[in-house]
Amino acid sequence: MTMKQVRVGIVGFGTVGRATADIIVKHADLIAHRSGVRLVVTAVCRRSSVQPQDTPAGACAVADWRRLLKDPNVDVVVETMGGTGESLELLRSSLEQGKPVVTANKNLLAEHGDELFRLAASRNLPIGFEASVAGGIPILRVIHESTAGDRLRSVHGILNGTANYILTQMESRGIEFAEALSEAQAAGFAEADPSFDIDGQDARDKLCILARMAFEDRLDVARIPTYGIRHVRAIDIHSATRLDSTIRLVGSAEQTDAGLEVSVRPWLVSRRSMLAKVEGVNNAVFLVGDKIGTQMFYGRGAGGDATGSAVVSDLIEIARDFAAGQMNAKNISGFLSSRELVLSDKPKPASWYLRLTVKDQRGIVARVAEVIAREAINIDSLEQEPHLPKDRVSFVITVEPVSEPVIRRAVDTINGFDFMVEPVLLLRMEE
Amino acid sequence: MTMKQVRVGIVGFGTVGRATADIIVKHADLIAHRSGVRLVVTAVCRRSSVQPQDTPAGACAVADWRRLLKDPNVDVVVETMGGTGESLELLRSSLEQGKPVVTANKNLLAEHGDELFRLAASRNLPIGFEASVAGGIPILRVIHESTAGDRLRSVHGILNGTANYILTQMESRGIEFAEALSEAQAAGFAEADPSFDIDGQDARDKLCILARMAFEDRLDVARIPTYGIRHVRAIDIHSATRLDSTIRLVGSAEQTDAGLEVSVRPWLVSRRSMLAKVEGVNNAVFLVGDKIGTQMFYGRGAGGDATGSAVVSDLIEIARDFAAGQMNAKNISGFLSSRELVLSDKPKPASWYLRLTVKDQRGIVARVAEVIAREAINIDSLEQEPHLPKDRVSFVITVEPVSEPVIRRAVDTINGFDFMVEPVLLLRMEE
Repeated sequence: MTMKQVRVGIVGFGTVGRATADIIVKHADLIAHRSGVRLVVTAVCRRSSVQPQDTPAGACAVADWRRLLKDPNVDVVVETMGGTGESLELLRSSLEQGKPVVTANKNLLAEHGDELFRLAASRNLPIGFEASVAGGIPILRVIHESTAGDRLRSVHGILNGTANYILTQMESRGIEFAEALSEAQAAGFAEADPSFDIDGQDARDKLCILARMAFEDRLDVARIPTYGIRHVRAIDIHSATRLDSTIRLVGSAEQTDAGLEVSVRPWLVSRRSMLAKVEGVNNAVFLVGDKIGTQMFYGRGAGGDATGSAVVSDLIEIARDFAAGQMNAKNISGFLSSRELVLSDKPKPASWYLRLTVKDQRGIVARVAEVIAREAINIDSLEQEPHLPKDRVSFVITVEPVSEPVIRRAVDTINGFDFMVEPVLLLRMEE
Repeated sequence: MTMKQVRVGIVGFGTVGRATADIIVKHADLIAHRSGVRLVVTAVCRRSSVQPQDTPAGACAVADWRRLLKDPNVDVVVETMGGTGESLELLRSSLEQGKPVVTANKNLLAEHGDELFRLAASRNLPIGFEASVAGGIPILRVIHESTAGDRLRSVHGILNGTANYILTQMESRGIEFAEALSEAQAAGFAEADPSFDIDGQDARDKLCILARMAFEDRLDVARIPTYGIRHVRAIDIHSATRLDSTIRLVGSAEQTDAGLEVSVRPWLVSRRSMLAKVEGVNNAVFLVGDKIGTQMFYGRGAGGDATGSAVVSDLIEIARDFAAGQMNAKNISGFLSSRELVLSDKPKPASWYLRLTVKDQRGIVARVAEVIAREAINIDSLEQEPHLPKDRVSFVITVEPVSEPVIRRAVDTINGFDFMVEPVLLLRMEE
């Protein structure tokens, strides 16, 4: 009996695309043995042409994805181009031509997932998107299949490896943000334009997908309050250490009685917390469910091999359907639902960390403390770092639990004072 | 359109069985919405009769599982009886009658999985067994589906919640093993006869299933070297702390060039290690793959709700097949393969912790050190605890990496000395 072949076309032949092709070639027999289907890369596409030595044996290389789509030797399309322009066109066209797609593109799904999943459902075609969140960690499959009998209450975690690498470098080596960023760029962990990673948009897109999967209604990505780590300084890491804590960029979506609380922001987390153990470019996603309790899923959040593995796991699932002659669009409610998730208008109280950088003058502490007192906020700790230049004095305040609008009001007032050198850095403290 | 119903019979109506019924009843609409199938509990079975108020509405309660199996209103059978006697008969009979089964019984699968999966395959019936390992953590599904494109090298972790609870109680409260065990029993975390948990057999059965899943050939459970935590003392926890470490019961299976290294044993793990962060009755499983790198999956390892959730996730998968009119026996190579995994005959060197309890007399250290030197083992540290009664003096030695047969030879010689009050406690040190 000859084994069924499923022919894969890969568009965007960068790190992830190449790693995907590499896994398919190297593990061909293993995959065939396990799944009963043989995956073959028949076409690759990159705008700048692919060198012959980089093209998998037997595959053709094209510079225009439209040619790849027309190729009758392509059964499934893998999209690893990134962006939301041509990649959107590619996914649309592929689905319209009846070809299932696998994508690693969180940005595209966060912005255009509604349209794409609707189109896929109307054609009964699957979209594989495990690789779009948390690299090699199979978190989307876990939410969709393994928690199918439970009601999830919260999904949160460290979703951006670049930001986590920078924070852990600042922590372990006592260096400033700018230096850690340059090093991350030099090491290939951060882009030349790093804003997507360090300002939180990448984590926000992933959180949007996670929240839709966990809570099964739609969520407009633009509604997720997003703060990055650009303003975290060595002094904050130092203050965190004094508080037996460290700093992590956390995406969090939690169902409360008042609706969904969702944000991407830097958190001050206890060193004893599992979040603190996540170092370097790793990711970790926590699920909390009524019945399952708290679960954590940890692993490499980026990189060709880990992300490529996730792409291949989706390809294998699709290939099995292909071989069985029966495509299955999964019921991905988070993108197909007609309802929007209701956001909370009554955020839960949390403790907060405020770092002020001021030109030293008499009475600053009194004025700041007065603002905080006026909002009925209790100060938990206050420390001014000694031996700092007078034109740039930092002090750190932690406060007892209050809701975000209250602390933001106080911060806005403080930011208006003429002695402030830069805006307050506000960190949420882990419960 | 009326929704398809899948009727569930639950045999063994204890903690897990009741939690399973409870989830099916409470989340009926949620499950129906997600899966397109309505799960209904139609029969429950327990030898001691089930009280009417505990029986799910509309379900009948019987005392003999043979009656439940004959019930035409049961489509799928859930086995949560435990043991390997009647449960084996139940699974056999159920499969022979064409009814798929879901089981939480690691002991049964570790000992009779080969027969049962063969029988299931011959009838093209699935066996759901996610609940048999690591409670609510969906580790078996992750290995089967999400790492399908990768070659796994190692699977290890904390697989027994009772043992972990005892160790973390000893650690956090400085109490002796016997006291921690009594408290665990009082709290319902340990059985009246705790040997299955504390001597490592429960972890061994789970490790056997994990290793079969990860490495896709058979593994006779009796071939897994298994050591428990019965001989760990407060003084060991104390010494571990001095070494900036703690103690965990770890099941580990690793493919090396010389074959599979597999064991269940207490490890000395660094406090900075993720293993050390796993506290109380939680479990954690680590996977290492060529492409995925290291992943960790963490959550509640036992308890009705978590385990019941895993049972229900399997039921949903089977129910979908049922509704589609097409049962699917998965290709579970680890139980269907005709090959046995080859065990390594050349274990990798590791560092070791030895604790000796002796009647104090002159020359003990010299004699012990001489035995160790004779095996060409280098001592890394040696400490004798002060202020101990002369008839029960403990000292702790850590040694540089040597392979297990070498250290065992030294330990065997030391155990023969007349000054030894009890055998050496040997802990493997985490790399």
